[in-house]
Amino acid sequence: MGQVVTNIERADASVIAGLAEAGVATVHEAQGRIGCLAPYMRPIYAGARIAGSAVTISAPPGDNWMLHVAIEQVQEGDILVLAPTSPCTDGYFGDLLATSAMARGCKGLVIAAGVRDVRDLTEMRFPVWSRAISAHGTVKETLGSVNVPIVCAGAAVEAGDVIVADDDGVCVVKRADAARVLEAAQKRTASEEAKRQRLAAGELGLDMYDMRGRLAEKGLKYV
Amino acid sequence: MGQVVTNIERADASVIAGLAEAGVATVHEAQGRIGCLAPYMRPIYAGARIAGSAVTISAPPGDNWMLHVAIEQVQEGDILVLAPTSPCTDGYFGDLLATSAMARGCKGLVIAAGVRDVRDLTEMRFPVWSRAISAHGTVKETLGSVNVPIVCAGAAVEAGDVIVADDDGVCVVKRADAARVLEAAQKRTASEEAKRQRLAAGELGLDMYDMRGRLAEKGLKYV
Amino acid sequence: MGQVVTNIERADASVIAGLAEAGVATVHEAQGRIGCLAPYMRPIYAGARIAGSAVTISAPPGDNWMLHVAIEQVQEGDILVLAPTSPCTDGYFGDLLATSAMARGCKGLVIAAGVRDVRDLTEMRFPVWSRAISAHGTVKETLGSVNVPIVCAGAAVEAGDVIVADDDGVCVVKRADAARVLEAAQKRTASEEAKRQRLAAGELGLDMYDMRGRLAEKGLKYV
Amino acid sequence: MGQVVTNIERADASVIAGLAEAGVATVHEAQGRIGCLAPYMRPIYAGARIAGSAVTISAPPGDNWMLHVAIEQVQEGDILVLAPTSPCTDGYFGDLLATSAMARGCKGLVIAAGVRDVRDLTEMRFPVWSRAISAHGTVKETLGSVNVPIVCAGAAVEAGDVIVADDDGVCVVKRADAARVLEAAQKRTASEEAKRQRLAAGELGLDMYDMRGRLAEKGLKYV
Amino acid sequence: MGQVVTNIERADASVIAGLAEAGVATVHEAQGRIGCLAPYMRPIYAGARIAGSAVTISAPPGDNWMLHVAIEQVQEGDILVLAPTSPCTDGYFGDLLATSAMARGCKGLVIAAGVRDVRDLTEMRFPVWSRAISAHGTVKETLGSVNVPIVCAGAAVEAGDVIVADDDGVCVVKRADAARVLEAAQKRTASEEAKRQRLAAGELGLDMYDMRGRLAEKGLKYV
Amino acid sequence: MGQVVTNIERADASVIAGLAEAGVATVHEAQGRIGCLAPYMRPIYAGARIAGSAVTISAPPGDNWMLHVAIEQVQEGDILVLAPTSPCTDGYFGDLLATSAMARGCKGLVIAAGVRDVRDLTEMRFPVWSRAISAHGTVKETLGSVNVPIVCAGAAVEAGDVIVADDDGVCVVKRADAARVLEAAQKRTASEEAKRQRLAAGELGLDMYDMRGRLAEKGLKYV
Repeated sequence: MGQVVTNIERADASVIAGLAEAGVATVHEAQGRIGCLAPYMRPIYAGARIAGSAVTISAPPGDNWMLHVAIEQVQEGDILVLAPTSPCTDGYFGDLLATSAMARGCKGLVIAAGVRDVRDLTEMRFPVWSRAISAHGTVKETLGSVNVPIVCAGAAVEAGDVIVADDDGVCVVKRADAARVLEAAQKRTASEEAKRQRLAAGELGLDMYDMRGRLAEKGLKYV
Repeated sequence: MGQVVTNIERADASVIAGLAEAGVATVHEAQGRIGCLAPYMRPIYAGARIAGSAVTISAPPGDNWMLHVAIEQVQEGDILVLAPTSPCTDGYFGDLLATSAMARGCKGLVIAAGVRDVRDLTEMRFPVWSRAISAHGTVKETLGSVNVPIVCAGAAVEAGDVIVADDDGVCVVKRADAARVLEAAQKRTASEEAKRQRLAAGELGLDMYDMRGRLAEKGLKYV
Repeated sequence: MGQVVTNIERADASVIAGLAEAGVATVHEAQGRIGCLAPYMRPIYAGARIAGSAVTISAPPGDNWMLHVAIEQVQEGDILVLAPTSPCTDGYFGDLLATSAMARGCKGLVIAAGVRDVRDLTEMRFPVWSRAISAHGTVKETLGSVNVPIVCAGAAVEAGDVIVADDDGVCVVKRADAARVLEAAQKRTASEEAKRQRLAAGELGLDMYDMRGRLAEKGLKYV
Repeated sequence: MGQVVTNIERADASVIAGLAEAGVATVHEAQGRIGCLAPYMRPIYAGARIAGSAVTISAPPGDNWMLHVAIEQVQEGDILVLAPTSPCTDGYFGDLLATSAMARGCKGLVIAAGVRDVRDLTEMRFPVWSRAISAHGTVKETLGSVNVPIVCAGAAVEAGDVIVADDDGVCVVKRADAARVLEAAQKRTASEEAKRQRLAAGELGLDMYDMRGRLAEKGLKYV
Repeated sequence: MGQVVTNIERADASVIAGLAEAGVATVHEAQGRIGCLAPYMRPIYAGARIAGSAVTISAPPGDNWMLHVAIEQVQEGDILVLAPTSPCTDGYFGDLLATSAMARGCKGLVIAAGVRDVRDLTEMRFPVWSRAISAHGTVKETLGSVNVPIVCAGAAVEAGDVIVADDDGVCVVKRADAARVLEAAQKRTASEEAKRQRLAAGELGLDMYDMRGRLAEKGLKYV
Repeated sequence: MGQVVTNIERADASVIAGLAEAGVATVHEAQGRIGCLAPYMRPIYAGARIAGSAVTISAPPGDNWMLHVAIEQVQEGDILVLAPTSPCTDGYFGDLLATSAMARGCKGLVIAAGVRDVRDLTEMRFPVWSRAISAHGTVKETLGSVNVPIVCAGAAVEAGDVIVADDDGVCVVKRADAARVLEAAQKRTASEEAKRQRLAAGELGLDMYDMRGRLAEKGLKYV
């Protein structure tokens, strides 16, 4: 505790943009069905779809001091990712911190705790994925750390990893894997378009994916 | 496990339409205050209001194979109803499956697990009531069953039962009871209109329902 | 149980109006970071922002009889606050009760249980903060009490206390403290405006709040 | 609601005794991996291991009246199975009801709600599997039903089905399947004994179950 | 926050002793079915059965400083009752604090948060009812208050109220009501003994409580 | 997925033994208040107190195939640590797998999912810390991985890290830190003994830790 790593590496901006466009579900599948944060992480408003480099925060329960420290570390396009050291639903973040974060170019916040001022944040179009919405405030008494490895909502996140977030939730991509995952995601998206058209035309998945033989082999019976 | 019942009976289409119009709360009351699924079943977008015959699916945790099998069994106006065999929040269903289901005339999905691509589903106006929104994907390895009796979010559902769903949640009506329940629901709706007007005019429920005597008898004291 | 207190004191209407404008997060901070109800209390639609005097209800699980009793006690601008005597998600309240409550001048409902007819309530603009949305109905068999002290979603509420509710949740202010809390809230709001502008201009909270010295003293290390 | 079915069929007593001996995990597997109640159903003390015919109870939240009605329907060796009509943790059952139930030959209680007097029940050796332990009491105001089909902790149970319960939880076996399931369970138990000895001797499951080929085929890599 | 009330009144010691003997379920019923803490409050070991005067603690999440302050306020026979200001499962209390509390005559701890060193506490026979068992430690940075009114696990508790705790959970009795509640509890206990004997002899509750008429009147049907 | 790392490094056996003796709470504090798994991880029986090197398992929901693969990787004194790839309460592990694991020298299992045959496991004295006890069985269809980094119950665990587990829960110590943490833990244990004696003699923590000045400075008031 009490450490701020100031010099983190980030993935390429164009890769990050591509991952945002691909979306959480596709990225998650493209990297081998890993990286999703727990489904209790929900956006405060619908429609946001972002990706950015993680600036990580480990903070004590009910103490948001490290958010101020972290905002200084934010570069244009980064996403703040906060994990409390033990489960907490307090509102660590509100409109003032969002104003400050936006002024630094921050794209959004992922927080496995609470957020408040959600009406203001919605008007400001500052997207947040959180475990709770809570007006309950926090103190500034105890150190945490910034840009250290954390576990956020069940997923391991390191500073500089790419965070992808949309209405389906949040996914993390290891920085070193980002380019490879983007490539796989784009292939997946391309291949899905053709499938979508066939399914829309009434073709069954059973036929399109050639599943009938394997289902029969496993013992599926029609009665 | 491993069974698909292909020939299910359905309630009359006009009865189903009537139940959709009556809505979940009224239908639930009309059939004697039974049939609601657990309140953790929430719509992915507000405003949908549907009824249809259940095509039931019992699927293993993290395995959506049976959805493909079930879609072949869907007839115009049916609703897919999936219960995992043990609690699971994975995203069993997304935009490709919705495209396929819609092509078969499916009206919506009720799933005691997770769903993903919720932005796409919202744009497609394919309504889903789910326990979770999760991008976490599934495999296709283990058989389940289609159109067998299931327990979905705490309610027993048989294939062909009528599912009613709106912003209040989901309710199931036994197929054999559907016509009788509709009749009771319509009576209830009619009787509520007069009550609504009296209450809007300032009459108290205490008087309208003649409750004061019984309250006093039970011992209610005003101090 | 079985008691209705008919003559409750209320805070000054202008104070109540001021607290509504200040909002839940500010009011909670202004009174020393106390009074928030649990974050599982969520509004049925976004954008409502109200304050009013609490008419409290203690009701048995699955029994909404006391709501009818309570509505008679409502005066213009009051808010109904219901706590079940044990955890319950049933839908105690729907469009008929809302019609009746609105006719008496009731501004909204805070209920640590379920609510139904949420589409109608949304159209009527009758705001509700609840623990659950559930169509499951209730009976009218067992007495509770009205305007007695209750614990609602983790907060102690007495009749006549001021309830403040918005998209961040719900907060209670002791009636006797309301004027003082409003004053503190207004000071806080005023002071935040200047801070917002400085933060928007790129100044860091670390500097604006002069935190660097204390952080260093606690041992924060930049690496 | 308001119905008591007085004449239910039960499985053969020797079959029931055999299922008790086989235990929950084995019985669940033997009938095709179905029938477990949710794992939040926990015994109030360790070591009980019972089976019996279900006398089912559907009861309103916070109302234990139907337990008195149900006890009259109990025959020697039966198990009471109670599901509240909506989620409730109240203590429906305590030492007086247990005294009465034991006097009728009742072997235990499975309740998807709360129980109290657990110290007394433990001393009486009256086993209970419940969702909660709670001293919070109930009323006797609203009818429920006895010996109707219920959903208890996620499992469909009909009167006369066989309930098996031990330290692993609770499982239900359809009455008509009981003899067949027992046979399968006994085969499973017998076959496990040989496996246990081989595993105890250090043989690996990988070899004993001949899994290596299939794992390699699926793509497992050792690195 | 930041207040210690040093001079609290306590109920009569013999009344407290009587309430401990009556037990949680009986006391709760005797005072009109109120006062139970939420059922997630569980004892760390079975068999403890205590009552004492509450020394209340309001503490921030993850901060146990106020426990040290509170222990100074403990008198022989008191029970510490801690509520975190927002939900927290951290281990606020362990063997050292228990040693200190026991040295002051403290009878036990009721904590709506976590406790640790449970093996040691069990060996010391220092009973604790908690929401969680957690080794996760706390800091000593932020003030809370001692002997102020709190809400603990859903129940309002004031300093000097009588806490009764056993294997069924925890109940609070207002100090001013303690003598009256004890009297009612003792009557209840006495009357239950006769009922127990009649039920043990096979008499049904239906007959003993004369329920058949009222059940029929409500519409109960035997089929 | 689908990877087994066969050659993992382990901490020194004497260090591991020392950490077991120190216990979870002390070890967690000694390494700077980090490393605890979530408090829902509970032992199936009281009194076990172990430490060992983690053999990690990432397994799909409802699929225990990888446990067989992992057991081959176990060396004397290791602890199996399983995290499902999405939340699951199924019973992945029972008496046969425990027999096999014990034959390989495995000391215990930490599983963020379910376990069954808990009576047998208790008799065998094979300790398990799990999220659930559930008889619900699993399949063997989908690959996972062994000895890869996982997140188990909120904590990041790598193969070869030291797992410490006792009645307070589970803690993980990075392999490279184990010796240093043990040293700190032993110092802590030694220093606590003197404190325990002073507290037992009636000295207050307020005095022993010299807290009064700092409390007053923070503004604590005695009233």
